[in-house]
Amino acid sequence: MASPIAFYFDFSSPYTYIASEEIEALAERHGREIDWRPMLLGAVFKTSGGMPLTEGYGPKARYSVRDFGRSAAFVGLPYRHPTVFPVGAVTASRAVLWLQRESPAQAAPFIHAVFRAFFVADRNISEAPVVMELARKLGVDAEQLAAGVQEDSIKNGLRIAVEEAVARGVFGSPTLFVDGEMFWGHDRLPEIERWITTGPY
Amino acid sequence: MASPIAFYFDFSSPYTYIASEEIEALAERHGREIDWRPMLLGAVFKTSGGMPLTEGYGPKARYSVRDFGRSAAFVGLPYRHPTVFPVGAVTASRAVLWLQRESPAQAAPFIHAVFRAFFVADRNISEAPVVMELARKLGVDAEQLAAGVQEDSIKNGLRIAVEEAVARGVFGSPTLFVDGEMFWGHDRLPEIERWITTGPY
Repeated sequence: MASPIAFYFDFSSPYTYIASEEIEALAERHGREIDWRPMLLGAVFKTSGGMPLTEGYGPKARYSVRDFGRSAAFVGLPYRHPTVFPVGAVTASRAVLWLQRESPAQAAPFIHAVFRAFFVADRNISEAPVVMELARKLGVDAEQLAAGVQEDSIKNGLRIAVEEAVARGVFGSPTLFVDGEMFWGHDRLPEIERWITTGPY
Repeated sequence: MASPIAFYFDFSSPYTYIASEEIEALAERHGREIDWRPMLLGAVFKTSGGMPLTEGYGPKARYSVRDFGRSAAFVGLPYRHPTVFPVGAVTASRAVLWLQRESPAQAAPFIHAVFRAFFVADRNISEAPVVMELARKLGVDAEQLAAGVQEDSIKNGLRIAVEEAVARGVFGSPTLFVDGEMFWGHDRLPEIERWITTGPY
C-alpha cells in the first residue's frame, strides 16, 4: 500500500476548502489514503511571519476574496465568503483530533461538514455550539465531544500538531506531502497527481 | 476583434517566465492579442509592502525555489534557478518599451529571450551589456537601443507603467487582465481560458 497523502489544513482557509473537496477523489484514483492534519495557521504565522490574505494591502485583499469565489466556481463548488473571516477554529480542530482517536470513520465527514458550514452556509465555526451541532448531525455524541475537546491530551495534541507542521516546513494551507515531497496550495493538485503517477520531476 | 490580454510582468519572476511561455498559445486559441506590460516588482512592493518569495521566512523561501523548478518541469519547460536572484531588470524593461515604440514585432521575441537568458542560461539580466547582447542576437540595433533606454521618455514611460500597474491593483507578477477581470499567477491560466471561453463565472 502506497503511503498516505498528508493534508495539513486550517479550517479558515478558502483554498483549503476547495482542496478538501477534491483530494479524496484524487487519492482514490491512485489507491492512496488521506492523513488529515488539522493545524492553526494563526499559530504557524507567529513563527513564519505570515498573515491572512485578506489583511494587509487592500488591492491584494480584495483580489483574494474575488479569487476565492472564482476558484471555487472554476471547479464547480459553491462559495459564500464568510461574514466573519478569518476565524480561529480551535474547537473544530480539536474535535478532529478527538474523532480521529474515538471514531475515525467520522473524522473526514466532520471535516467536510465544518468547511461547508463556513464557506457555503456562512456559519461561524469558531463557536463551539456550532461545531457541536455539526458533529451531532453526523451522529456524533456531542456531549462526549464537548468533554473531549477539553481534555489535556487533545489540547496538547493540537499544540503538538502545530509544532510538527512548523518543524516540517509548513507555512500555509493547504500543505500536502506526497512521498516526502511538499506541495502548497489547492492549485498544486494537478502537480501532485502527476507526481504520484510518474514519480519525481 | 476581442480585446487583448494585458500581461503585467517583472523579468525577475519565475512564475512569470512560465506564464510567458504559455500565454501566446492560449491567446491564439481564442483570437486574442497580448498586451505586454513590463513593470518593476521592487517598485510595486514599495507601495504594497510585498517582498520576493525567496526572502523572509526560510522554509517558504526554500519551498519556493523547489516549486519554481517543479512548476516549470510540470509544463515541460527547462528551469535553472539564477545564481543572482532576484534582480532589478530596469534596462531590460526599458528596452521592451523602446522596442514597442520603435520595432514592435521584436518586442515579444525580446521578452522571451530575456526570460530564457535569466531562467535557463543563468545570465545576469540586470546587466546592460547582457541585455544589449540579447537584443543584438535578435537583429536589433544595439547602439540605438543603448541610447534609447537612456531617453527621458523611455525612463518616464517605465515609471508611469509601474504607477499605472499599482493604480490598477497589481501587486504581483504575472498579473493578467482579461476583459477587465484580474488574474494573478501562472497557475490561473486555466481559469483565464475558461473565462474567455464561457464568460464570467
